[in-house]
Amino acid sequence: MALPSFHLRLALLLLLAVCASAVHPRKLTRFGGVRRFTTSEPSYELPPEYEIHYYTQTVDHFNYKPYSYATFQHRYILNYKYWGGANSSSPIFVYTGEETDVTYDVETFILDLAARFKGQHVNSFESYFNTLGYLSLEQALADYAQVIVDVKKNLSAENCPAVAVGASYGGMLASWFRIKYPHIVIGALASSSPILYFDDITPQNGYHVAVTKDFRDTSESCYNTIKQSWSEIDRIAAEPNGLMTLSNKFNTCSPLNTSQELKDYLEIMYVSAAQYDNPPYYPVERTCRGIDGAPEGTDILGRIVAGLKSRFRGWDSCHDIFTFELSNKSAWDWQTCTQIVMPIGYGYNETMFEAEPFDINNYTKDCLDVFGIVPRPHWMTTEFGGHDIKTVLGNFASNIIFANGLRDPYSIGGVLEDISDSVVAVHTEHGAHCSDLHPPTPDDPDWLVAQRDKEIKIISAWIVEYYAKLATK
Amino acid sequence: MALPSFHLRLALLLLLAVCASAVHPRKLTRFGGVRRFTTSEPSYELPPEYEIHYYTQTVDHFNYKPYSYATFQHRYILNYKYWGGANSSSPIFVYTGEETDVTYDVETFILDLAARFKGQHVNSFESYFNTLGYLSLEQALADYAQVIVDVKKNLSAENCPAVAVGASYGGMLASWFRIKYPHIVIGALASSSPILYFDDITPQNGYHVAVTKDFRDTSESCYNTIKQSWSEIDRIAAEPNGLMTLSNKFNTCSPLNTSQELKDYLEIMYVSAAQYDNPPYYPVERTCRGIDGAPEGTDILGRIVAGLKSRFRGWDSCHDIFTFELSNKSAWDWQTCTQIVMPIGYGYNETMFEAEPFDINNYTKDCLDVFGIVPRPHWMTTEFGGHDIKTVLGNFASNIIFANGLRDPYSIGGVLEDISDSVVAVHTEHGAHCSDLHPPTPDDPDWLVAQRDKEIKIISAWIVEYYAKLATK
Repeated sequence: MALPSFHLRLALLLLLAVCASAVHPRKLTRFGGVRRFTTSEPSYELPPEYEIHYYTQTVDHFNYKPYSYATFQHRYILNYKYWGGANSSSPIFVYTGEETDVTYDVETFILDLAARFKGQHVNSFESYFNTLGYLSLEQALADYAQVIVDVKKNLSAENCPAVAVGASYGGMLASWFRIKYPHIVIGALASSSPILYFDDITPQNGYHVAVTKDFRDTSESCYNTIKQSWSEIDRIAAEPNGLMTLSNKFNTCSPLNTSQELKDYLEIMYVSAAQYDNPPYYPVERTCRGIDGAPEGTDILGRIVAGLKSRFRGWDSCHDIFTFELSNKSAWDWQTCTQIVMPIGYGYNETMFEAEPFDINNYTKDCLDVFGIVPRPHWMTTEFGGHDIKTVLGNFASNIIFANGLRDPYSIGGVLEDISDSVVAVHTEHGAHCSDLHPPTPDDPDWLVAQRDKEIKIISAWIVEYYAKLATK
Repeated sequence: MALPSFHLRLALLLLLAVCASAVHPRKLTRFGGVRRFTTSEPSYELPPEYEIHYYTQTVDHFNYKPYSYATFQHRYILNYKYWGGANSSSPIFVYTGEETDVTYDVETFILDLAARFKGQHVNSFESYFNTLGYLSLEQALADYAQVIVDVKKNLSAENCPAVAVGASYGGMLASWFRIKYPHIVIGALASSSPILYFDDITPQNGYHVAVTKDFRDTSESCYNTIKQSWSEIDRIAAEPNGLMTLSNKFNTCSPLNTSQELKDYLEIMYVSAAQYDNPPYYPVERTCRGIDGAPEGTDILGRIVAGLKSRFRGWDSCHDIFTFELSNKSAWDWQTCTQIVMPIGYGYNETMFEAEPFDINNYTKDCLDVFGIVPRPHWMTTEFGGHDIKTVLGNFASNIIFANGLRDPYSIGGVLEDISDSVVAVHTEHGAHCSDLHPPTPDDPDWLVAQRDKEIKIISAWIVEYYAKLATK
């Protein structure tokens, strides 16, 4: 593609918190560390070109208590290496990160994005505070607004166009930030952000139906084996010493306490394979290759073990069986117990899994037990919309890319259709969760290269349009 | 104008709080009663077609404290008289009111608006709570969102298009509501809403320069008399028994304590005349008629008194001199001390008034004295934008009417230029503050009739477009 003239202007990259590993189904979540979370998480070592800065941030943007404007030190990261400077109105890429430490995993596609624009400058933000009550999406977005305005002011960069980029939960933040603060960023690239997986917009079973489809499309026999494995586990568990038989079969480091532990663990293996079914490993295909490729006569659970061995190295040593439980140490779990209520569940025979319907009463009970808080399951659609999104945003918003890989089961809750000329869906049949934001490699498949090129082209157009308006002022 | 087909659908009118008398310069503000304000204000008697309802509202939408989802009873008003019902997807007009009791002054142009649409239904909301800390614009907008969603749900009216209408501070709320919650209202009519009078967007002296222009355009000699009156007051006050002379001259009920009292009072008289320079009374013209029409040889202060007599009836009895001071009983004053910091001030010889520059240090000191709170003078532009509004909203928002009367000094901080095809400025040379939202009368001048017709036509187009999209779903 022809390079627009602004390619010569070096871009400023501004990351608001750094992407870890994206949104998870509730039972799979275990990532903490977003805004205002009590944490002693490590700061990962940063490459030398990244500078850590602090902004004195307001704890509560929306209430005013006399004599109590509490503040906290909001950490963010800058990388001046590529930036063209304020005089050339060089663009600013703002990474709206999600549930992890800001120093973790700073180098995503956003660096490459700017490299394609001939330069960049990375900033990265996060915010911690030791009272979970203040951790909400609205406070986080307001934090971002304050820091971006402050960074621009400090750099005399008020005329520099800022673009939000985020992945997964961070992608939701990026798109909502563009929708709520259009005066602060000129556009948003929202990768794998399931902003429609709230309230009754998306079918509750969508996520697991999609996981099932990923496996079934890969191999009908693999799918059948997994589907049959649950009752086989129950059958063996019911035998004398059945749990020991299962523990030995799966080579667990500690004996299983219940067969449900094993089932939960296997479910995590399958959904994570589907969600992160990225090149070059393609864990769904690897798992199925093991399941289907086991020697003739291998029984069902033997095939399941063969699938795990095919996917993971080191299976010969014993294996830790883990499951995820709500934790009062996890900021993400806190968020699922307050605002981010994704009603994920599925009935009998709708997927390759055993039925597990979404039950708001149980969900609420768990949140009360762990956090003492009642979730607000309808607040997201009241605050951010989502129903009838095509009519609403088609007439309203502009400059948002909703990027998805259709193998990612979260894509079911994403925006998969163009909403207008400038609120567009860019998805790939083969991609998984946040594939496009992974750091590019020379071995990337053509479809991934093409997806990123398309995103760059769209973002280019936003910036060109911005400069054209700037020139007429 | 030809009636679009939807004119046969009766409209639902939803007022979120009722307009009193609009935004005031800080020193003139005295209106209380918005969201969450400790108040024992009276409930005005409503016409029988208005029903009072209550919604159990969340006190704090943006923080989550375990075991502490406090709620309050959010009062709103419904009028079913004209409504066509949910089956015909009849429109809903939402009145986003401002600083007064919800039962006060319910019958504005919004009733007429719907009458022109062959019917309507009035709802009116407000919200009180006894902790000022929770009174913020963001909480108020979130309250509105919750109630509108709830009312629609209760009436199975999810498909009914809602339109926000507001005047002055309520007009700011209407436009910001459209900007922040485009999924809840399809458009907004924002009358006399000075959304650009924040930070450094509008010249600080704009308001008083405009007041001065109103008087000078009406009469050069009237303007000169007022301009000269301040030093004349000082001269007389400096004489022996000068304050008594002034008290007698102005027929004050109590003796003046300082000459400043009189000056403040007169300033209020002039700016209120300009702000509310509405038909049929036109207080600027009346004031100037009195000043200019005094008998040959009348001295300067005699002319000022003649101006007041011409404007007000009952001048023969004594006159209460009043000024406005920040009050810890006023919700509006609270808002000016937290978020709504309009930097209104003016230097020497810039207006017909004595210099009174805006001083953020004094402003802050007053707020600390009265409320113990430090204002956030830059928060409004971070949260709601305003700088470079044409670029930002031209590329983003849709369906907002910014209505102004250019005689209203607040129009200086309003949006007076079309921003896009559907974010438009509708202003009149002769109009004052919120003229268009006054209840229409048979004696209204042509320009006012034309302004309202234009607003109706634009709102018609929004609704027609909405129905067209609805039909394709």
